[in-house]
Amino acid sequence: MMTGAEYIESLRRLKTEVYFMGQRVESVVDHPAIRPHVNTAAVTYDLAHDPEYADLASAVSHLTGRRINRWTHIPQNQEDLVKKVKMLRVAGQITGTCFQRCVGMDALITLYSVTHDVDKKYGTDYHERFKRFLIETQDRDLMSGGAMTDPKGDRSKRPHEQHDPDLFVRVVERRSDGIVVRGAKMHQTGAVNSHQFIVLPGQSLGPEDKDYAVAFAVPADAPGVIQVFGRQVNDSRKWEGKIDQGNPTYGVVGGEALVIFDDVFVPYERVFLLGEWEFASTIVERFTAYHRQNYGGCKSGNLDVLIGATLALAEMQGTAKASHVRDKLAEMAHMVETMYGGALACSYECTKLACGTAFVNPLLANTAKLNTARYYPEVTRLAQDIAGGFVATMPSERELDNPRVGQFIRKYYQTRADVPAEDRIRLGRLVENMTGATPIIECMHGAGSPQAQKVVVQRLFDWVKRRRLAERIAGVGTEEGR
Amino acid sequence: MMTGAEYIESLRRLKTEVYFMGQRVESVVDHPAIRPHVNTAAVTYDLAHDPEYADLASAVSHLTGRRINRWTHIPQNQEDLVKKVKMLRVAGQITGTCFQRCVGMDALITLYSVTHDVDKKYGTDYHERFKRFLIETQDRDLMSGGAMTDPKGDRSKRPHEQHDPDLFVRVVERRSDGIVVRGAKMHQTGAVNSHQFIVLPGQSLGPEDKDYAVAFAVPADAPGVIQVFGRQVNDSRKWEGKIDQGNPTYGVVGGEALVIFDDVFVPYERVFLLGEWEFASTIVERFTAYHRQNYGGCKSGNLDVLIGATLALAEMQGTAKASHVRDKLAEMAHMVETMYGGALACSYECTKLACGTAFVNPLLANTAKLNTARYYPEVTRLAQDIAGGFVATMPSERELDNPRVGQFIRKYYQTRADVPAEDRIRLGRLVENMTGATPIIECMHGAGSPQAQKVVVQRLFDWVKRRRLAERIAGVGTEEGR
Amino acid sequence: MMTGAEYIESLRRLKTEVYFMGQRVESVVDHPAIRPHVNTAAVTYDLAHDPEYADLASAVSHLTGRRINRWTHIPQNQEDLVKKVKMLRVAGQITGTCFQRCVGMDALITLYSVTHDVDKKYGTDYHERFKRFLIETQDRDLMSGGAMTDPKGDRSKRPHEQHDPDLFVRVVERRSDGIVVRGAKMHQTGAVNSHQFIVLPGQSLGPEDKDYAVAFAVPADAPGVIQVFGRQVNDSRKWEGKIDQGNPTYGVVGGEALVIFDDVFVPYERVFLLGEWEFASTIVERFTAYHRQNYGGCKSGNLDVLIGATLALAEMQGTAKASHVRDKLAEMAHMVETMYGGALACSYECTKLACGTAFVNPLLANTAKLNTARYYPEVTRLAQDIAGGFVATMPSERELDNPRVGQFIRKYYQTRADVPAEDRIRLGRLVENMTGATPIIECMHGAGSPQAQKVVVQRLFDWVKRRRLAERIAGVGTEEGR
Amino acid sequence: MMTGAEYIESLRRLKTEVYFMGQRVESVVDHPAIRPHVNTAAVTYDLAHDPEYADLASAVSHLTGRRINRWTHIPQNQEDLVKKVKMLRVAGQITGTCFQRCVGMDALITLYSVTHDVDKKYGTDYHERFKRFLIETQDRDLMSGGAMTDPKGDRSKRPHEQHDPDLFVRVVERRSDGIVVRGAKMHQTGAVNSHQFIVLPGQSLGPEDKDYAVAFAVPADAPGVIQVFGRQVNDSRKWEGKIDQGNPTYGVVGGEALVIFDDVFVPYERVFLLGEWEFASTIVERFTAYHRQNYGGCKSGNLDVLIGATLALAEMQGTAKASHVRDKLAEMAHMVETMYGGALACSYECTKLACGTAFVNPLLANTAKLNTARYYPEVTRLAQDIAGGFVATMPSERELDNPRVGQFIRKYYQTRADVPAEDRIRLGRLVENMTGATPIIECMHGAGSPQAQKVVVQRLFDWVKRRRLAERIAGVGTEEGR
Repeated sequence: MMTGAEYIESLRRLKTEVYFMGQRVESVVDHPAIRPHVNTAAVTYDLAHDPEYADLASAVSHLTGRRINRWTHIPQNQEDLVKKVKMLRVAGQITGTCFQRCVGMDALITLYSVTHDVDKKYGTDYHERFKRFLIETQDRDLMSGGAMTDPKGDRSKRPHEQHDPDLFVRVVERRSDGIVVRGAKMHQTGAVNSHQFIVLPGQSLGPEDKDYAVAFAVPADAPGVIQVFGRQVNDSRKWEGKIDQGNPTYGVVGGEALVIFDDVFVPYERVFLLGEWEFASTIVERFTAYHRQNYGGCKSGNLDVLIGATLALAEMQGTAKASHVRDKLAEMAHMVETMYGGALACSYECTKLACGTAFVNPLLANTAKLNTARYYPEVTRLAQDIAGGFVATMPSERELDNPRVGQFIRKYYQTRADVPAEDRIRLGRLVENMTGATPIIECMHGAGSPQAQKVVVQRLFDWVKRRRLAERIAGVGTEEGR
Repeated sequence: MMTGAEYIESLRRLKTEVYFMGQRVESVVDHPAIRPHVNTAAVTYDLAHDPEYADLASAVSHLTGRRINRWTHIPQNQEDLVKKVKMLRVAGQITGTCFQRCVGMDALITLYSVTHDVDKKYGTDYHERFKRFLIETQDRDLMSGGAMTDPKGDRSKRPHEQHDPDLFVRVVERRSDGIVVRGAKMHQTGAVNSHQFIVLPGQSLGPEDKDYAVAFAVPADAPGVIQVFGRQVNDSRKWEGKIDQGNPTYGVVGGEALVIFDDVFVPYERVFLLGEWEFASTIVERFTAYHRQNYGGCKSGNLDVLIGATLALAEMQGTAKASHVRDKLAEMAHMVETMYGGALACSYECTKLACGTAFVNPLLANTAKLNTARYYPEVTRLAQDIAGGFVATMPSERELDNPRVGQFIRKYYQTRADVPAEDRIRLGRLVENMTGATPIIECMHGAGSPQAQKVVVQRLFDWVKRRRLAERIAGVGTEEGR
Repeated sequence: MMTGAEYIESLRRLKTEVYFMGQRVESVVDHPAIRPHVNTAAVTYDLAHDPEYADLASAVSHLTGRRINRWTHIPQNQEDLVKKVKMLRVAGQITGTCFQRCVGMDALITLYSVTHDVDKKYGTDYHERFKRFLIETQDRDLMSGGAMTDPKGDRSKRPHEQHDPDLFVRVVERRSDGIVVRGAKMHQTGAVNSHQFIVLPGQSLGPEDKDYAVAFAVPADAPGVIQVFGRQVNDSRKWEGKIDQGNPTYGVVGGEALVIFDDVFVPYERVFLLGEWEFASTIVERFTAYHRQNYGGCKSGNLDVLIGATLALAEMQGTAKASHVRDKLAEMAHMVETMYGGALACSYECTKLACGTAFVNPLLANTAKLNTARYYPEVTRLAQDIAGGFVATMPSERELDNPRVGQFIRKYYQTRADVPAEDRIRLGRLVENMTGATPIIECMHGAGSPQAQKVVVQRLFDWVKRRRLAERIAGVGTEEGR
Repeated sequence: MMTGAEYIESLRRLKTEVYFMGQRVESVVDHPAIRPHVNTAAVTYDLAHDPEYADLASAVSHLTGRRINRWTHIPQNQEDLVKKVKMLRVAGQITGTCFQRCVGMDALITLYSVTHDVDKKYGTDYHERFKRFLIETQDRDLMSGGAMTDPKGDRSKRPHEQHDPDLFVRVVERRSDGIVVRGAKMHQTGAVNSHQFIVLPGQSLGPEDKDYAVAFAVPADAPGVIQVFGRQVNDSRKWEGKIDQGNPTYGVVGGEALVIFDDVFVPYERVFLLGEWEFASTIVERFTAYHRQNYGGCKSGNLDVLIGATLALAEMQGTAKASHVRDKLAEMAHMVETMYGGALACSYECTKLACGTAFVNPLLANTAKLNTARYYPEVTRLAQDIAGGFVATMPSERELDNPRVGQFIRKYYQTRADVPAEDRIRLGRLVENMTGATPIIECMHGAGSPQAQKVVVQRLFDWVKRRRLAERIAGVGTEEGR
């Protein structure tokens, strides 16, 4: 297992083609817009060596028996799934932001079982290929970017119906030694600091979409892989100073890139689905179930930090004992524990898939996600409400050094005699950072919009059973008592 | 273990003093206002013998090694707590209403551990007394009414400050062989069909409230115990016919009584707390934690039935495929699974108390309760919305037999050619029954108002840890980067 | 204008055929299940004579110049529409329930303008017929039941597609002197104590539904008109006593009947639409706009009473000064004023229809309705929360007279020394009555479900204008600044 | 009346001392961080000359009879108040952001009436002074920054109890010709591009806070007035390019500054309150009532733009016809009209103050504000949901010019063949801009937090009347019917 420092060094050896703000990025490690994301991903490496958290953040590979980072582990039982959730909450608490390594983890878990199922139906050998790939990923402790979301174009049309056939990633050539793929994947979290990408179909497909039914892995610096790092809220603050960033070490949630596959060659050894279109929906369903499980972990960890920052500000500002502030803090905590409870419940209530992998209860996993989508903005709104208007109108940290106005900033942003104004400003900036509107969007669309999730519930809930229960109780079809 | 039928017979042997509608009730078993509640409680007995559910509804006593009904069992481990929740969901699905035996169950569980703690502090022997009482309750398979909620009078005052000292149950005399108690407990679910009452303090007490710090058990027909059965929504329909009741076998949720202790003698063998006022809050906290756990079980089971009834009506009325109806049904299911997930999570995340009893995670238990309080009315509102206005304005079932109008009722309440109007009316009545405003009130106040629960969260959540996480991330107190 | 007493007497002279609980009702005035509704409707008559409210509750007929009850008036200007809303709030405050006369009022207003429009298109003379009918209604001060909602059967089918063609009211015969109609109207508020019915189509129709495109008026006791009075929550309490009713004079909201037209003859003089199917949607849209306006009036008046009852209970119980109770009461008031504000806004922002009638702003009227549908249950939930669990479990009023338990009821339901227990019980029963789940359903379905209203907004809001505003601001289609 | 261009020129003549990002701002007009705010404020000048809107945006001064800009007008009647709201909605629609001139307008309106009331009590001559000031403001068409919010320090303490007495603006010296003031006002919208400030107390005061009871006006460039322009979300984008700003002409909502009064001299002619501490609460109440009225205007105008942008994106992306998208758009429109309806209702339901000024109904004004605070974040959340994840992860506009990646951006951000990718990006940036978390905070805290507003409702609602209504209906204190 690598340490965080080793991970960072390993990134320097990659020759990725990354663009940002109109220019090629020389080194993702050293670029101020990207470095905080690198730091956060590094936490996933360090936790596995941390005596306090190693039990959560590492595991024993069921394939090799070697100790590996849990972010590369295929969960074998209830305990593995529960530890996944608890690991995410801890990492969320330590970083206060997204550590980007979960999409890749869930892509690994998903393909492990789906390749098994495809082989069973078609006699293919995807599963063995995938195992070899997995062992290498585990042994080299690679960070994988899981790539699912296609540009999609006109959403009322299927992939093959789009005016531009490349709006979904597809196979454009089949060679003797491998395939050539073209297309792009949108808003890929952690992509620019991943070692490799695992590419999966992002929605269910029909027979005419066969060329879009492709899953594969490529190194992040494979020829033809081009990344464009997206803008983030207040990204320029990262190169302007430290305080205004809010979370100067770990940055703002996310760090997404557009990943372009400009006719990229993939050897068959790294192809895990090729044309078996009916398994696209299996991949999506299984991936999203595992990914929904996560939200109750990482987001509750992040919101623990936000609750702490809000409490600290309330104490500084003399409002922490007001009953409406106390009620709001309690409400925030309640919502956080609801998210977490859903993630735990779906883990404890797991089943076994055919290949032996432990599978979360998808209905309960869905509650974790839906409640996160519903409660996360509520928590941030309460945080803003308690923190107060100053969060949105604070002066630049540079004023602190200005000889004319620095003194006034320190004077008028101070609340109590014993609290330096700068501490209040730092916490205010953290709250501002964490309550920006965008995190919830960027990170959670991968697991399906609320609408998509309702469809999931409509399918998974045992409606017929409930109807029969009601009919029996109501005496439908009987003449009893008349 | 008794069967349901044996339970019902056992009630006939009790000489309880019960009043309803201004008159003494001769037999609770035969009174139409009470019989449905008896039937529902009987389900808790029958389930323990049902091959499909016996594993959930029975257990092995850790004291005697004998198989007992789980409603009298003290949970020893994670599995016991999880089965408690699953048992409640099943019973909720079968009856569509409240089976009334949980308050007594949680009172048993609570006193088992608290008597242990009191003894440890004071060298008393409450725990041994309680064990003897417990074994008898288990072996005779008794139904216990747990009695906590005092009339409370002016809530801005403590018990000893009330204008009438009896507004909280208190000891009025200490004799050589026992004590005499006076007061009342309000809205006691299942009281009139219980074999015995377990009486606990209902709120934290101070040293001046010492006489109110009393816990004990009495037979339901002890001299001086007088019960007044409360009115329920549409209670008269129980003696007017069958269909209009909605749930003709199991009735409307609850079945509460005012239980009056008119100077009742309790022998010391049945006294489990006497003056140790500081343990009143322990009792309340422990009881409510176990009781909050339940809501995610029983209420999700009840709402399963409501969802089923709503779906059945939508299908009859031709609206089941409308996208907004499907979305609403999915939302109902999501809310139900959220309640259930919270109950499971708090059970899986249990700890051990000093006496060995498994204790739910109180913070997660709280989410189960708060989400139930929040989502239950939402689910019922969606049910009403889908079912439509006819639910509130249906004619009496007696019109069906009227030669002039019966034909018109059948004609105009029919929707599709293949669905008899009576079936729609029965389901409509079930929805009306289950969405009445009162259930949520009567049954859940025992576990604390939303306000009381916020206080719980304020106390249990580790606020300091969160504040420190935030301060470290924000760089509070540091000069880093400047 | 009649007084309330005269109105009640006038009902005795009608020979309506009404059934309830399987039996024909001899006299609606004297039947305990119906009398409270009669009393409430009588308030609409008395208010017009009340010096304090006569300005709101009466008006000058624009047709005759005579002073008439406003419930029969066609609004001519902004002032008339605003007074309509204020009159409804007052009546809602006085009765605490539904006074049933608004559906008929809005049916009159709607037909007045639609007959004008139909005549303009087809050269018919419906408008003159209708004026004659209106003048008679105004001069005799009749209470009209507006009848819109058909049984509807399978809602995925149009009227002419139903398995039973009578599931919507239709013309079955056209004679030289009039028409014969068959069908039924569901949950007609105030029907059993109306003098006449005004029957309108309840949804938009197509050309194949021509026979369903019929509007007409009939006396409530016309041959073939059969009414079945629906059950209400706790209706039996009306004949069991006084206190348990909650609102002993005015009863529970609503009072709905199934009105059956068993081949009823209607002379042409009372036919106001016959086959002009494309005007069915005009009728529905116009009627619902006027009716949505009402909710912000009557419901805010009703909720004023509920807020008052809740406050009174909080004061009795010693919780009125707790900050969370104060916050909840303020929230209740906020929601009530939001409903009212919407009703006022849509009235002030009125326009003139072709015939000169003042027409509410339908988009703002819709907000009044949607906010009422959304906030009404919230207000009742807060009321239950503050009032506490006793509301749902109170003993029967008959216990008060029982020599054994009456003393205990009085003792244990008392809170403060200066408040008799009976007063608390009365207010508790009022809260129970007003927070039953059903009122919101029965009364508001006539103005469209929330879903139906979203469709209205989708149609009425000027979407194109907004899109253009955004495109201009975003610089869409320009190259400015590049 | 000035035009927008004249306004901009007039700013050049001011010698304000403004700092931003650690440096003194040479010219607010030419600074890229500030210019968009100047442009937006200029719209308030141009509207008064626009034939389409002049009736809304100008008025006739009741003091001079001259035509003036409505942002300097004292409302004399219902029509003036209604036009104020409609003017705000229009300006909000045109700019999509905050035009900053309302705080000053409401400060003028407030002081006009309060000076009248103070004079009446104390025989002072504030009102005449103020009239002279007002006429000058009207005739010179000045933009006034209304300054209320003090730094406040420890909010559990009163002004005179703070560890630093300057944490609220106060009089530090009284001279023969005027006073000297010290302190600061936080997050002052539009301050840096105002001609003058009107300074008011920001909360109720007690007798010990007498030196804090001061209201006055000063030129924006008076000696000792120092401004620090606060950071805004994504402010650096303003000097990086055009597209990424989202709203390149008018910028992000707000534009707030810390305004420091470093011992500023104010001649008595511009002092409008001096020591009459009991009028501080009158000022706050009156100001907030007028300011709450506004939100239903300007915010509904802003959200009109957001709804339009959302619709445009949905159409581009092929989702505009999906039923859940249509429902969400309708819900957005409903919420916007609710805000607007409240603002209209409080205007129409106005009363006259002693000095003849028309005063909004404060209870209804409060609903406009509370619903805006509640619904605004809901609308933005729905906008994000419909727009989709791309809004949060878009590449920089500079990539469009990069020869390697520009083509891919255009290819993969295109949806339909007929929609250029750039147009989608522009609209996406507008949605990103408008749904940032901060606007709601910065701009609305001036009118009181939701908590503060609940207190307002608690005070203004006629609670006693409601309680009496309920008691009469419930029969409290009577024996009727028994």
